[in-house]
Amino acid sequence: MAKSTQLIDNEVFRAYATYAGIVLIKMMLMSLITAYFRITRKAFVNPEDTESFGKGENAKKYLRTDPDVERARRGHLNDLENIVPFVGIGLLYALSGPELSTALLHFRIFTGARILHTFAYLIPLPQPGRGLSWAVGYSVTFSMAYKVLKTAWLL
Amino acid sequence: MAKSTQLIDNEVFRAYATYAGIVLIKMMLMSLITAYFRITRKAFVNPEDTESFGKGENAKKYLRTDPDVERARRGHLNDLENIVPFVGIGLLYALSGPELSTALLHFRIFTGARILHTFAYLIPLPQPGRGLSWAVGYSVTFSMAYKVLKTAWLL
Amino acid sequence: MAKSTQLIDNEVFRAYATYAGIVLIKMMLMSLITAYFRITRKAFVNPEDTESFGKGENAKKYLRTDPDVERARRGHLNDLENIVPFVGIGLLYALSGPELSTALLHFRIFTGARILHTFAYLIPLPQPGRGLSWAVGYSVTFSMAYKVLKTAWLL
Repeated sequence: MAKSTQLIDNEVFRAYATYAGIVLIKMMLMSLITAYFRITRKAFVNPEDTESFGKGENAKKYLRTDPDVERARRGHLNDLENIVPFVGIGLLYALSGPELSTALLHFRIFTGARILHTFAYLIPLPQPGRGLSWAVGYSVTFSMAYKVLKTAWLL
Repeated sequence: MAKSTQLIDNEVFRAYATYAGIVLIKMMLMSLITAYFRITRKAFVNPEDTESFGKGENAKKYLRTDPDVERARRGHLNDLENIVPFVGIGLLYALSGPELSTALLHFRIFTGARILHTFAYLIPLPQPGRGLSWAVGYSVTFSMAYKVLKTAWLL
Repeated sequence: MAKSTQLIDNEVFRAYATYAGIVLIKMMLMSLITAYFRITRKAFVNPEDTESFGKGENAKKYLRTDPDVERARRGHLNDLENIVPFVGIGLLYALSGPELSTALLHFRIFTGARILHTFAYLIPLPQPGRGLSWAVGYSVTFSMAYKVLKTAWLL
Protein backbone atom coordinates (compact mmCIF):
# COMPACT_ATOMS: atom_id res chain seq x y z
CA MET A 1 0.00 0.00 0.00
CA ALA A 2 3.02 2.23 0.54
CA LYS A 3 3.46 2.96 -3.14
CA SER A 4 -0.12 4.06 -3.74
CA THR A 5 0.00 6.36 -0.80
CA GLN A 6 3.19 7.89 -2.16
CA LEU A 7 1.74 8.64 -5.58
CA ILE A 8 -1.39 10.20 -4.10
CA ASP A 9 0.88 12.25 -1.79
CA ASN A 10 2.52 13.91 -4.78
CA GLU A 11 0.91 17.37 -5.04
CA VAL A 12 0.72 17.48 -8.83
CA PHE A 13 -0.89 14.04 -8.82
CA ARG A 14 -3.37 15.12 -6.16
CA ALA A 15 -4.31 18.16 -8.28
CA TYR A 16 -4.71 15.89 -11.30
CA ALA A 17 -6.89 13.47 -9.34
CA THR A 18 -9.08 16.35 -8.15
CA TYR A 19 -9.67 17.93 -11.55
CA ALA A 20 -9.94 14.62 -13.44
CA GLY A 21 -12.53 13.56 -10.85
CA ILE A 22 -14.47 16.80 -11.30
CA VAL A 23 -14.62 16.70 -15.11
CA LEU A 24 -15.46 12.98 -15.17
CA ILE A 25 -18.33 13.62 -12.75
CA LYS A 26 -19.43 16.55 -14.91
CA MET A 27 -19.41 14.25 -17.94
CA MET A 28 -21.43 11.61 -16.08
CA LEU A 29 -24.06 14.21 -15.12
CA MET A 30 -24.87 14.54 -18.83
CA SER A 31 -26.57 11.13 -18.51
CA LEU A 32 -28.94 12.55 -15.90
CA ILE A 33 -29.66 15.63 -18.04
CA THR A 34 -30.46 13.42 -21.03
CA ALA A 35 -32.68 11.21 -18.85
CA TYR A 36 -34.44 14.31 -17.47
CA PHE A 37 -35.25 15.54 -20.99
CA ARG A 38 -36.31 12.06 -22.15
CA ILE A 39 -38.78 11.81 -19.27
CA THR A 40 -40.15 15.39 -19.30
CA ARG A 41 -40.32 15.56 -23.16
CA LYS A 42 -41.55 11.94 -23.33
CA ALA A 43 -39.06 11.11 -26.08
CA PHE A 44 -37.60 7.61 -25.96
CA VAL A 45 -35.71 5.33 -28.29
CA ASN A 46 -36.20 1.85 -26.81
CA PRO A 47 -39.71 0.32 -27.07
CA GLU A 48 -39.32 -1.27 -23.62
CA ASP A 49 -38.87 2.22 -22.12
CA THR A 50 -42.37 3.34 -23.14
CA GLU A 51 -44.28 0.35 -21.84
CA SER A 52 -45.37 2.18 -18.70
CA PHE A 53 -47.33 4.56 -20.98
CA GLY A 54 -49.53 1.70 -22.17
CA LYS A 55 -49.38 -0.79 -25.01
CA GLY A 56 -49.44 -0.46 -28.80
CA GLU A 57 -49.99 2.84 -30.60
CA ASN A 58 -50.39 4.73 -27.33
CA ALA A 59 -46.82 3.90 -26.33
CA LYS A 60 -45.34 4.04 -29.84
CA LYS A 61 -45.91 7.78 -30.17
CA TYR A 62 -43.26 8.35 -27.49
CA LEU A 63 -40.60 6.66 -29.63
CA ARG A 64 -39.40 9.91 -31.15
CA THR A 65 -36.51 12.34 -31.11
CA ASP A 66 -36.72 15.63 -29.24
CA PRO A 67 -34.45 18.66 -29.85
CA ASP A 68 -33.58 19.05 -26.14
CA VAL A 69 -32.74 15.36 -25.76
CA GLU A 70 -30.57 15.43 -28.88
CA ARG A 71 -28.81 18.58 -27.67
CA ALA A 72 -27.96 16.98 -24.31
CA ARG A 73 -26.71 13.87 -26.16
CA ARG A 74 -24.47 15.95 -28.41
CA GLY A 75 -23.07 17.70 -25.34
CA HIS A 76 -22.37 14.30 -23.79
CA LEU A 77 -20.62 13.02 -26.92
CA ASN A 78 -18.55 16.22 -27.11
CA ASP A 79 -17.49 15.57 -23.52
CA LEU A 80 -16.41 12.03 -24.44
CA GLU A 81 -14.39 13.43 -27.35
CA ASN A 82 -12.65 16.06 -25.20
CA ILE A 83 -12.69 15.06 -21.52
CA VAL A 84 -11.48 11.50 -22.15
CA PRO A 85 -8.28 12.71 -23.94
CA PHE A 86 -7.77 15.22 -21.11
CA VAL A 87 -7.96 12.45 -18.51
CA GLY A 88 -5.52 10.23 -20.44
CA ILE A 89 -3.02 12.92 -21.43
CA GLY A 90 -3.41 14.68 -18.06
CA LEU A 91 -2.32 11.53 -16.21
CA LEU A 92 0.86 11.26 -18.29
CA TYR A 93 1.38 15.01 -17.89
CA ALA A 94 1.06 14.77 -14.09
CA LEU A 95 3.70 12.00 -14.14
CA SER A 96 6.06 14.00 -16.38
CA GLY A 97 7.14 16.25 -13.51
CA PRO A 98 5.57 19.66 -14.26
CA GLU A 99 5.66 22.55 -11.78
CA LEU A 100 2.60 22.47 -9.49
CA SER A 101 1.59 26.03 -10.47
CA THR A 102 1.84 25.24 -14.21
CA ALA A 103 -0.11 22.02 -13.77
CA LEU A 104 -2.83 23.77 -11.75
CA LEU A 105 -3.11 26.44 -14.45
CA HIS A 106 -3.71 23.76 -17.11
CA PHE A 107 -6.20 21.80 -15.00
CA ARG A 108 -8.15 24.88 -13.88
CA ILE A 109 -8.48 26.41 -17.35
CA PHE A 110 -9.56 23.08 -18.86
CA THR A 111 -12.14 22.43 -16.16
CA GLY A 112 -13.54 25.96 -16.35
CA ALA A 113 -13.71 25.80 -20.14
CA ARG A 114 -15.58 22.49 -20.16
CA ILE A 115 -18.12 23.67 -17.56
CA LEU A 116 -18.68 26.81 -19.68
CA HIS A 117 -19.00 24.60 -22.77
CA THR A 118 -21.80 22.61 -21.16
CA PHE A 119 -23.75 25.76 -20.28
CA ALA A 120 -23.07 27.22 -23.75
CA TYR A 121 -24.44 24.01 -25.30
CA LEU A 122 -27.49 23.52 -23.11
CA ILE A 123 -28.81 27.10 -22.76
CA PRO A 124 -27.71 27.57 -25.69
CA LEU A 125 -25.49 30.66 -25.79
CA PRO A 126 -24.98 32.35 -29.16
CA GLN A 127 -21.79 31.44 -30.99
CA PRO A 128 -18.84 31.80 -30.64
CA GLY A 129 -19.49 31.04 -26.95
CA ARG A 130 -19.53 27.27 -27.38
CA GLY A 131 -16.81 27.31 -30.03
CA LEU A 132 -14.43 29.34 -27.90
CA SER A 133 -14.91 27.29 -24.72
CA TRP A 134 -14.32 24.15 -26.81
CA ALA A 135 -11.14 25.63 -28.34
CA VAL A 136 -9.74 26.64 -24.94
CA GLY A 137 -10.12 23.13 -23.51
CA TYR A 138 -8.75 21.61 -26.72
CA SER A 139 -5.66 23.87 -26.64
CA VAL A 140 -4.94 23.09 -22.98
CA THR A 141 -4.96 19.36 -23.76
CA PHE A 142 -2.54 19.92 -26.66
CA SER A 143 -0.25 21.95 -24.41
CA MET A 144 -0.14 19.07 -21.93
CA ALA A 145 0.42 16.55 -24.76
CA TYR A 146 3.39 18.62 -25.97
CA LYS A 147 4.97 18.45 -22.48
CA VAL A 148 4.34 14.69 -22.28
CA LEU A 149 5.90 13.96 -25.67
CA LYS A 150 8.85 16.27 -24.99
CA THR A 151 9.54 14.50 -21.67
CA ALA A 152 8.78 10.89 -22.55
CA TRP A 153 9.62 10.65 -26.26
CA LEU A 154 10.69 7.07 -27.00
CA LEU A 155 9.43 5.93 -30.38
CA MET B 1 11.32 -1.91 -14.18
CA ALA B 2 11.35 -2.20 -10.40
CA LYS B 3 8.71 0.46 -9.93
CA SER B 4 6.23 -1.01 -12.38
CA THR B 5 6.55 -4.37 -10.77
CA GLN B 6 5.88 -2.79 -7.42
CA LEU B 7 2.69 -1.05 -8.55
CA ILE B 8 1.35 -4.24 -10.12
CA ASP B 9 2.29 -6.09 -6.91
CA ASN B 10 -0.08 -3.88 -4.91
CA GLU B 11 -3.17 -6.02 -4.31
CA VAL B 12 -5.71 -3.20 -4.77
CA PHE B 13 -3.99 -2.21 -8.00
CA ARG B 14 -4.02 -5.82 -9.21
CA ALA B 15 -7.75 -6.03 -8.47
CA TYR B 16 -8.27 -2.76 -10.35
CA ALA B 17 -6.24 -4.02 -13.34
CA THR B 18 -8.27 -7.24 -13.42
CA TYR B 19 -11.71 -5.61 -13.34
CA ALA B 20 -10.76 -2.69 -15.59
CA GLY B 21 -9.41 -5.22 -18.08
CA ILE B 22 -12.62 -7.25 -17.90
CA VAL B 23 -15.02 -4.32 -18.43
CA LEU B 24 -12.85 -2.84 -21.22
CA ILE B 25 -12.87 -6.21 -23.00
CA LYS B 26 -16.64 -6.41 -22.47
CA MET B 27 -16.98 -2.94 -24.03
CA MET B 28 -14.81 -3.94 -27.00
CA LEU B 29 -16.98 -7.03 -27.61
CA MET B 30 -19.84 -4.65 -28.46
CA SER B 31 -17.98 -3.96 -31.74
CA LEU B 32 -18.21 -7.65 -32.65
CA ILE B 33 -21.90 -7.77 -31.72
CA THR B 34 -22.61 -4.72 -33.90
CA ALA B 35 -20.60 -6.27 -36.76
CA TYR B 36 -22.49 -9.55 -36.35
CA PHE B 37 -25.85 -7.78 -36.65
CA ARG B 38 -24.63 -5.63 -39.59
CA ILE B 39 -23.63 -8.77 -41.50
CA THR B 40 -26.58 -11.02 -40.63
CA ARG B 41 -29.18 -8.20 -41.05
CA LYS B 42 -27.32 -6.84 -44.10
CA ALA B 43 -27.52 -3.26 -42.76
CA PHE B 44 -24.50 -1.08 -43.50
CA VAL B 45 -23.71 2.59 -43.43
CA ASN B 46 -20.60 2.93 -45.66
CA PRO B 47 -21.08 2.39 -49.41
CA GLU B 48 -17.69 0.65 -49.64
CA ASP B 49 -18.94 -2.00 -47.17
CA THR B 50 -21.70 -3.19 -49.53
CA GLU B 51 -19.60 -3.56 -52.68
CA SER B 52 -19.28 -7.30 -52.25
CA PHE B 53 -23.09 -7.51 -52.74
CA GLY B 54 -22.74 -6.10 -56.28
CA LYS B 55 -22.81 -2.65 -57.81
CA GLY B 56 -25.42 0.10 -58.05
CA GLU B 57 -29.00 -0.35 -56.80
CA ASN B 58 -28.39 -3.94 -55.78
CA ALA B 59 -25.80 -2.83 -53.21
CA LYS B 60 -27.52 0.42 -52.24
CA LYS B 61 -30.47 -1.35 -50.65
CA TYR B 62 -28.15 -2.59 -47.89
CA LEU B 63 -27.33 0.98 -46.84
CA ARG B 64 -30.02 1.09 -44.18
CA THR B 65 -30.53 1.06 -40.44
CA ASP B 66 -31.67 -2.04 -38.62
CA PRO B 67 -33.23 -2.11 -35.12
CA ASP B 68 -30.83 -4.78 -33.82
CA VAL B 69 -27.78 -2.95 -35.15
CA GLU B 70 -28.93 0.33 -33.61
CA ARG B 71 -29.61 -1.40 -30.29
CA ALA B 72 -26.11 -2.87 -30.16
CA ARG B 73 -24.67 0.56 -31.05
CA ARG B 74 -26.64 2.23 -28.26
CA GLY B 75 -25.37 -0.39 -25.82
CA HIS B 76 -21.81 0.32 -26.99
CA LEU B 77 -22.25 4.09 -26.57
CA ASN B 78 -23.71 3.56 -23.10
CA ASP B 79 -20.62 1.52 -22.24
CA LEU B 80 -18.38 4.38 -23.40
CA GLU B 81 -20.38 6.80 -21.24
CA ASN B 82 -20.14 4.60 -18.14
CA ILE B 83 -17.19 2.22 -18.37
CA VAL B 84 -14.70 4.91 -19.41
CA PRO B 85 -15.42 7.04 -16.28
CA PHE B 86 -15.13 3.86 -14.18
CA VAL B 87 -11.71 3.11 -15.64
CA GLY B 88 -10.47 6.69 -15.04
CA ILE B 89 -11.96 7.18 -11.57
CA GLY B 90 -11.18 3.58 -10.61
CA LEU B 91 -7.47 4.11 -11.29
CA LEU B 92 -7.38 7.16 -9.00
CA TYR B 93 -9.46 5.25 -6.45
CA ALA B 94 -7.03 2.31 -6.50
CA LEU B 95 -4.17 4.77 -5.85
CA SER B 96 -6.04 6.51 -3.02
CA GLY B 97 -5.35 3.66 -0.60
CA PRO B 98 -8.73 1.95 -0.05
CA GLU B 99 -9.09 -1.31 1.86
CA LEU B 100 -8.78 -4.30 -0.49
CA SER B 101 -12.17 -5.65 0.58
CA THR B 102 -13.90 -2.30 -0.03
CA ALA B 103 -12.20 -1.90 -3.39
CA LEU B 104 -13.16 -5.43 -4.45
CA LEU B 105 -16.75 -4.72 -3.45
CA HIS B 106 -16.85 -1.64 -5.70
CA PHE B 107 -15.15 -3.37 -8.65
CA ARG B 108 -17.28 -6.52 -8.43
CA ILE B 109 -20.61 -4.72 -8.18
CA PHE B 110 -19.74 -2.39 -11.07
CA THR B 111 -18.59 -5.24 -13.30
CA GLY B 112 -21.63 -7.37 -12.50
CA ALA B 113 -23.98 -4.43 -13.10
CA ARG B 114 -22.48 -3.60 -16.50
CA ILE B 115 -22.61 -7.22 -17.68
CA LEU B 116 -26.26 -7.34 -16.59
CA HIS B 117 -26.84 -4.01 -18.36
CA THR B 118 -25.58 -5.46 -21.65
CA PHE B 119 -27.90 -8.46 -21.40
CA ALA B 120 -30.79 -6.20 -20.37
CA TYR B 121 -30.14 -4.02 -23.43
CA LEU B 122 -29.61 -6.75 -26.02
CA ILE B 123 -32.32 -9.28 -25.08
CA PRO B 124 -34.05 -6.80 -24.18
CA LEU B 125 -35.35 -7.30 -20.65
CA PRO B 126 -38.41 -5.30 -19.59
CA GLN B 127 -37.70 -2.13 -17.65
CA PRO B 128 -36.59 -1.31 -14.99
CA GLY B 129 -34.00 -4.08 -15.59
CA ARG B 130 -31.76 -1.96 -17.78
CA GLY B 131 -32.38 1.20 -15.77
CA LEU B 132 -31.50 -0.44 -12.46
CA SER B 133 -28.33 -2.10 -13.71
CA TRP B 134 -27.27 1.26 -15.17
CA ALA B 135 -28.01 3.05 -11.86
CA VAL B 136 -26.02 0.53 -9.82
CA GLY B 137 -22.90 0.96 -11.94
CA TYR B 138 -23.36 4.73 -11.96
CA SER B 139 -23.65 4.85 -8.16
CA VAL B 140 -20.55 2.71 -7.64
CA THR B 141 -18.52 5.09 -9.80
CA PHE B 142 -19.80 8.06 -7.78
CA SER B 143 -18.88 6.29 -4.54
CA MET B 144 -15.31 5.83 -5.81
CA ALA B 145 -15.17 9.44 -7.02
CA TYR B 146 -16.16 10.61 -3.54
CA LYS B 147 -13.27 8.66 -2.00
CA VAL B 148 -10.85 10.04 -4.60
CA LEU B 149 -11.89 13.65 -4.06
CA LYS B 150 -11.87 13.25 -0.26
CA THR B 151 -8.33 11.82 -0.35
CA ALA B 152 -6.74 13.92 -3.09
CA TRP B 153 -8.58 17.25 -2.88
CA LEU B 154 -6.20 19.97 -4.03
CA LEU B 155 -8.01 22.62 -6.06
CA MET C 1 8.16 14.53 -7.31
CA ALA C 2 10.72 11.76 -7.08
CA LYS C 3 8.16 9.07 -7.77
CA SER C 4 6.73 10.67 -10.88
CA THR C 5 10.18 11.17 -12.29
CA GLN C 6 10.91 7.52 -11.64
CA LEU C 7 7.81 6.28 -13.43
CA ILE C 8 8.47 8.48 -16.46
CA ASP C 9 12.10 7.27 -16.42
CA ASN C 10 10.95 3.68 -16.93
CA GLU C 11 11.54 2.98 -20.63
CA VAL C 12 8.39 0.93 -21.19
CA PHE C 13 6.35 3.68 -19.52
CA ARG C 14 8.03 6.31 -21.68
CA ALA C 15 7.19 4.32 -24.80
CA TYR C 16 3.60 3.99 -23.60
CA ALA C 17 3.36 7.73 -22.91
CA THR C 18 4.71 8.50 -26.39
CA TYR C 19 2.33 6.23 -28.30
CA ALA C 20 -0.69 6.96 -26.10
CA GLY C 21 -0.01 10.67 -26.65
CA ILE C 22 0.22 10.18 -30.42
CA VAL C 23 -3.00 8.18 -30.80
CA LEU C 24 -4.93 10.52 -28.45
CA ILE C 25 -3.77 13.51 -30.53
CA LYS C 26 -4.76 11.64 -33.70
CA MET C 27 -8.21 11.04 -32.18
CA MET C 28 -8.55 14.71 -31.25
CA LEU C 29 -7.68 15.77 -34.80
CA MET C 30 -10.92 14.10 -35.92
CA SER C 31 -12.73 17.07 -34.32
CA LEU C 32 -10.90 19.44 -36.65
CA ILE C 33 -11.65 17.26 -39.68
CA THR C 34 -15.35 17.19 -38.77
CA ALA C 35 -15.33 20.97 -38.24
CA TYR C 36 -13.57 21.45 -41.61
CA PHE C 37 -16.27 19.44 -43.42
CA ARG C 38 -19.09 21.18 -41.50
CA ILE C 39 -17.78 24.59 -42.59
CA THR C 40 -16.84 23.77 -46.21
CA ARG C 41 -20.01 21.65 -46.81
CA LYS C 42 -22.13 24.12 -44.81
CA ALA C 43 -23.78 21.29 -42.87
CA PHE C 44 -24.58 22.06 -39.24
CA VAL C 45 -26.72 20.57 -36.52
CA ASN C 46 -27.15 23.40 -33.98
CA PRO C 47 -29.33 26.38 -35.02
CA GLU C 48 -26.97 28.78 -33.22
CA ASP C 49 -24.13 27.64 -35.50
CA THR C 50 -25.85 28.89 -38.67
CA GLU C 51 -26.77 32.37 -37.45
CA SER C 52 -23.82 33.97 -39.23
CA PHE C 53 -25.47 32.88 -42.52
CA GLY C 54 -28.51 35.07 -41.82
CA LYS C 55 -31.84 34.54 -40.07
CA GLY C 56 -34.85 32.36 -40.72
CA GLU C 57 -35.15 30.11 -43.78
CA ASN C 58 -31.83 31.31 -45.18
CA ALA C 59 -29.99 29.87 -42.21
CA LYS C 60 -32.25 26.84 -41.73
CA LYS C 61 -31.17 25.24 -45.00
CA TYR C 62 -27.72 24.68 -43.50
CA LEU C 63 -29.16 22.48 -40.74
CA ARG C 64 -28.60 19.28 -42.64
CA THR C 65 -26.45 16.17 -42.72
CA ASP C 66 -23.62 15.78 -45.21
CA PRO C 67 -21.98 12.45 -46.19
CA ASP C 68 -18.43 13.75 -45.58
CA VAL C 69 -19.34 15.17 -42.16
CA GLU C 70 -21.03 11.92 -41.16
CA ARG C 71 -18.06 9.88 -42.37
CA ALA C 72 -15.62 11.95 -40.28
CA ARG C 73 -17.94 11.58 -37.27
CA ARG C 74 -18.07 7.80 -37.69
CA GLY C 75 -14.28 7.74 -37.85
CA HIS C 76 -14.14 9.76 -34.64
CA LEU C 77 -16.58 7.44 -32.85
CA ASN C 78 -14.63 4.40 -34.03
CA ASP C 79 -11.50 6.00 -32.53
CA LEU C 80 -13.32 6.44 -29.21
CA GLU C 81 -14.37 2.79 -29.30
CA ASN C 82 -10.84 1.53 -30.04
CA ILE C 83 -8.24 4.09 -28.93
CA VAL C 84 -9.77 4.62 -25.48
CA PRO C 85 -9.52 0.89 -24.58
CA PHE C 86 -5.94 0.90 -25.92
CA VAL C 87 -5.02 3.83 -23.66
CA GLY C 88 -6.59 2.16 -20.60
CA ILE C 89 -5.33 -1.37 -21.21
CA GLY C 90 -1.98 -0.07 -22.48
CA LEU C 91 -1.34 1.74 -19.20
CA LEU C 92 -1.94 -1.44 -17.21
CA TYR C 93 0.15 -3.38 -19.73
CA ALA C 94 3.05 -0.93 -19.38
CA LEU C 95 2.88 -1.42 -15.60
CA SER C 96 2.77 -5.23 -15.87
CA GLY C 97 6.49 -5.45 -16.66
CA PRO C 98 6.69 -6.45 -20.34
CA GLU C 99 9.97 -6.50 -22.29
CA LEU C 100 10.63 -3.12 -23.92
CA SER C 101 10.91 -4.69 -27.39
CA THR C 102 7.60 -6.56 -26.99
CA ALA C 103 5.89 -3.44 -25.70
CA LEU C 104 7.22 -1.31 -28.55
CA LEU C 105 5.99 -3.92 -31.03
CA HIS C 106 2.46 -3.70 -29.60
CA PHE C 107 2.42 0.10 -29.45
CA ARG C 108 3.88 0.57 -32.95
CA ILE C 109 1.54 -1.88 -34.66
CA PHE C 110 -1.51 -0.41 -32.92
CA THR C 111 -0.54 3.16 -33.77
CA GLY C 112 0.23 2.32 -37.39
CA ALA C 113 -3.03 0.39 -37.75
CA ARG C 114 -5.14 3.25 -36.37
CA ILE C 115 -3.50 5.84 -38.62
CA LEU C 116 -4.15 3.54 -41.59
CA HIS C 117 -7.72 3.08 -40.38
CA THR C 118 -8.31 6.83 -40.45
CA PHE C 119 -7.02 7.14 -44.03
CA ALA C 120 -9.02 4.05 -45.05
CA TYR C 121 -12.17 5.64 -43.59
CA LEU C 122 -11.73 9.17 -44.92
CA ILE C 123 -10.46 8.53 -48.47
CA PRO C 124 -12.26 5.94 -48.44
CA LEU C 125 -10.22 2.90 -49.43
CA PRO C 126 -12.11 -0.15 -50.75
CA GLN C 127 -12.75 -2.88 -48.21
CA PRO C 128 -11.17 -4.86 -46.59
CA GLY C 129 -8.70 -1.97 -46.06
CA ARG C 130 -10.64 -0.38 -43.23
CA GLY C 131 -11.76 -3.72 -41.80
CA LEU C 132 -8.25 -5.14 -41.66
CA SER C 133 -6.67 -2.05 -40.10
CA TRP C 134 -9.46 -2.10 -37.50
CA ALA C 135 -8.88 -5.82 -36.79
CA VAL C 136 -5.13 -5.38 -36.35
CA GLY C 137 -5.54 -2.62 -33.75
CA TYR C 138 -8.30 -4.61 -32.03
CA SER C 139 -6.11 -7.75 -31.83
CA VAL C 140 -3.14 -5.82 -30.42
CA THR C 141 -5.34 -4.45 -27.62
CA PHE C 142 -6.56 -7.98 -26.83
CA SER C 143 -2.98 -9.26 -26.74
CA MET C 144 -2.10 -6.55 -24.19
CA ALA C 145 -5.25 -7.30 -22.17
CA TYR C 146 -4.25 -10.97 -22.03
CA LYS C 147 -0.83 -10.04 -20.56
CA VAL C 148 -2.48 -7.68 -18.04
CA LEU C 149 -4.98 -10.28 -16.84
CA LYS C 150 -2.31 -13.00 -16.69
CA THR C 151 -0.05 -10.78 -14.57
CA ALA C 152 -2.58 -9.02 -12.35
CA TRP C 153 -5.39 -11.55 -12.00
CA LEU C 154 -7.05 -10.97 -8.63
CA LEU C 155 -10.81 -11.44 -8.85
